[in-house]
Amino acid sequence: MYKATVNVTLRKSILDPKGKAAHHALKDLGLTEVENVRIGKLIELNIDADNKDTAYDIAEDACTKLLANEVMEDFEITIQKN
Amino acid sequence: MYKATVNVTLRKSILDPKGKAAHHALKDLGLTEVENVRIGKLIELNIDADNKDTAYDIAEDACTKLLANEVMEDFEITIQKN
Repeated sequence: MYKATVNVTLRKSILDPKGKAAHHALKDLGLTEVENVRIGKLIELNIDADNKDTAYDIAEDACTKLLANEVMEDFEITIQKN
Repeated sequence: MYKATVNVTLRKSILDPKGKAAHHALKDLGLTEVENVRIGKLIELNIDADNKDTAYDIAEDACTKLLANEVMEDFEITIQKN
């Protein structure tokens, strides 16, 4: 069993309205030192695979088919043995 | 300038409907090797601080005040120099 951790982030050129809203709210709370906020997704998958490479391929498949929108988002996969 | 990466995850005991939906969808797509899916948030903050400790404190403040709901969520902060 492997654990895949997937970081899905909006591409730099894409406006991030959630992040902008959080940034404004933090400013209003007095946290003026925060200069930029970007919000992405952190997805954890438990994968039943024979080896690390197979687990990676399955996680990549899951990302391209469902979890990430590659037009707007980048993703990064880390695999750990469970 | 420091970059704080915050991983916000739902506590283990809390049901994750987004993750469940993704898990079902992956099964329907034929990715039956995926046994569990949990979806959290990945937040990147650029923080203007004099040192790493101050940057950490500001990020922690942002999490407890706004970014994470500590009743249901855990958070983990990593600080890097930019």
